[in-house]
Amino acid sequence: MFEAKLAQSSLLKKVLDALREIVEDANLDCSSDGIKCQAMDSSHVALVSFDLSSDGFEPYRCDRNITLGLKLATMTRVLKCAGNDDSITLRSQDNTDTLTVLFESPNQDKTSQFEVKLMDIDTEHLGIPESEYSAVVQLPSGEFQRICRDLSQFGDSLVIACTKDGVEFSGSGEIGSAKISLRQHSMVDKEDEQVTVELNQPVTLTFSTRYLVSFSKATPLSSSVTLSLKAETPLVVEYRISDVGHLRYYLAPKIGDDEETEHIDDCS
Amino acid sequence: MFEAKLAQSSLLKKVLDALREIVEDANLDCSSDGIKCQAMDSSHVALVSFDLSSDGFEPYRCDRNITLGLKLATMTRVLKCAGNDDSITLRSQDNTDTLTVLFESPNQDKTSQFEVKLMDIDTEHLGIPESEYSAVVQLPSGEFQRICRDLSQFGDSLVIACTKDGVEFSGSGEIGSAKISLRQHSMVDKEDEQVTVELNQPVTLTFSTRYLVSFSKATPLSSSVTLSLKAETPLVVEYRISDVGHLRYYLAPKIGDDEETEHIDDCS
Amino acid sequence: MFEAKLAQSSLLKKVLDALREIVEDANLDCSSDGIKCQAMDSSHVALVSFDLSSDGFEPYRCDRNITLGLKLATMTRVLKCAGNDDSITLRSQDNTDTLTVLFESPNQDKTSQFEVKLMDIDTEHLGIPESEYSAVVQLPSGEFQRICRDLSQFGDSLVIACTKDGVEFSGSGEIGSAKISLRQHSMVDKEDEQVTVELNQPVTLTFSTRYLVSFSKATPLSSSVTLSLKAETPLVVEYRISDVGHLRYYLAPKIGDDEETEHIDDCS
Repeated sequence: MFEAKLAQSSLLKKVLDALREIVEDANLDCSSDGIKCQAMDSSHVALVSFDLSSDGFEPYRCDRNITLGLKLATMTRVLKCAGNDDSITLRSQDNTDTLTVLFESPNQDKTSQFEVKLMDIDTEHLGIPESEYSAVVQLPSGEFQRICRDLSQFGDSLVIACTKDGVEFSGSGEIGSAKISLRQHSMVDKEDEQVTVELNQPVTLTFSTRYLVSFSKATPLSSSVTLSLKAETPLVVEYRISDVGHLRYYLAPKIGDDEETEHIDDCS
Repeated sequence: MFEAKLAQSSLLKKVLDALREIVEDANLDCSSDGIKCQAMDSSHVALVSFDLSSDGFEPYRCDRNITLGLKLATMTRVLKCAGNDDSITLRSQDNTDTLTVLFESPNQDKTSQFEVKLMDIDTEHLGIPESEYSAVVQLPSGEFQRICRDLSQFGDSLVIACTKDGVEFSGSGEIGSAKISLRQHSMVDKEDEQVTVELNQPVTLTFSTRYLVSFSKATPLSSSVTLSLKAETPLVVEYRISDVGHLRYYLAPKIGDDEETEHIDDCS
Repeated sequence: MFEAKLAQSSLLKKVLDALREIVEDANLDCSSDGIKCQAMDSSHVALVSFDLSSDGFEPYRCDRNITLGLKLATMTRVLKCAGNDDSITLRSQDNTDTLTVLFESPNQDKTSQFEVKLMDIDTEHLGIPESEYSAVVQLPSGEFQRICRDLSQFGDSLVIACTKDGVEFSGSGEIGSAKISLRQHSMVDKEDEQVTVELNQPVTLTFSTRYLVSFSKATPLSSSVTLSLKAETPLVVEYRISDVGHLRYYLAPKIGDDEETEHIDDCS
């Protein structure tokens, strides 16, 4: 028996929406620790993973490890039926191939219950080695999304350059070139609006703009985002999920001017 | 000579928008009592009617009964030209085939006058027998719209089940099944948000989801909606139009699992 | 060397958006006086011009007259990358074919710099003779846009009639006819909402609705608009650009019922 209740159904909606930017189906691995997920996009260029601690759920019960294979389009349709302040409960009996999703309004006057079929999804799990990064940049997630979207008009590649002064995003295409610079600045009172760069050494890397645009759509998850960069190592784009865990995207840098992004399973 | 002035043009816009969900053309029957209308959708499955009392208009003058045959698409275009707080006057001379529509801004500084052609529309008038219903459910109209829209993702049929505890809407389709329950609750201070069930006997009926979704688009007309149910009798979905009258949709229940909705003229 | 900085980048965006309603490319003529532009639509029926005084920029530097040939679609894409409160600096070195566009956030923490290619655009400059108009109407720009949009549903032609009492806009098409009247009224406290008519003699002229709808999209530039009318003379639709200058559209009246709008270069 697996049962997990989250006070805000909207949070799970945001997590699954973020997954859906990269994959169509995903396995949720449920254990007594919580719910984990890792999935690779079909071209093996990008990886997404999330980790939701059992502490974030109340109650949380997972008698034995189970894997919930979800068609994300279906889950999106179900989650659209939740009210803004509804709680969500996921429930699955052992040895069934269905998932029960239950929404309850705060005053308990409305309940919505859904039964969806689970899927068998083949996945390979990729070990992601710990890395010491050359630069770790934190910036407002809305700013990151805006920059990715703006630069998507200027070519397929987006260059991120980190120095001690700040971070610079640039692109160049048919209509011209663009360079957006953010200066490092900390504000004591508005932590979410600050831009910080922890720098071991200056680093300049090139990425596929298209993927960064997709990643940045996870903005509703968190007011800030962290980019971790190192040469020949996948970029990590991390969104903290308050009190519950985090969601991370990984993307290998482009090498050379005309080359494609490396497969993430080759470079990690 | 027919002349009727309504302080809020937006009200007539909402009524005609609600009509338009079911029919393209409609006859407005004007008498000294007020304006009535009844129209059946082209497949003879659903019926819509409204009744606006002459008391709601000021002035209201109808020297002899006339029928205004309206092309609703044209009326929608005309009514879009009204300002939010404009009054509306409908005027038609005897023996003409045009309707004059006049909008006046509250301060009288702007007036907009339109002349539209009237149509000859063939209609049959259906007598709707009074019925004592098994259950009469009142719920917030926005909630009803939400439920219809949510369940439209789960199959073509929507089951409404009324018990003394409340009302349950359910559906089932390719992606899974869904069941939304509203518990009866009255709030003295927020009458529009309450859910009440007047029950003579429990009743469970199945309807075409598509029609209910159309009906529920009349939500702007009223903050609450009333559903009246009885076996082998058309469902009545009623929106009160404050101080002026009401608008009602009728829809025959489906019989058997795979059957089509009955023609409303057969079952009434 | 040309350099011009405007505190509000949004103002230039609105000016170029207004140009784009009529033309795809435009030459900006820069001199020590400021930036001027004149452009004719491809069918030679409408003309747009604007005049931004050097006083509106700080700093403004123009060592020698230059012409910046802009592809407006490109400029729109670049200007979309500006933040709401960003300043904009246009910069071009002598003897280059690129324009540098620089956005700076109020706190200087974010800068975005773009390089776009300039174009060679063939244009003829049309001398617009001063005219004494029969009527000059001032009305809220939003009201003018609303009226043009509303009447676009009633035929291809829009008649503007000015009398001492006010101004009347009318149209007539397949679905019926429409007449919108604005009464002259001045409000001391809300100058932008007033409707005034300076009348030398009553005048009634017919214009292509389509062009008026395009012109009226410049509404964001100013809260009021001025229409100057005279028989056999192009209509002038003018938007003041606060402290900086103005933008004007010119459109020749239609002559006769079925005739096309005259070419503006014939009638001026």
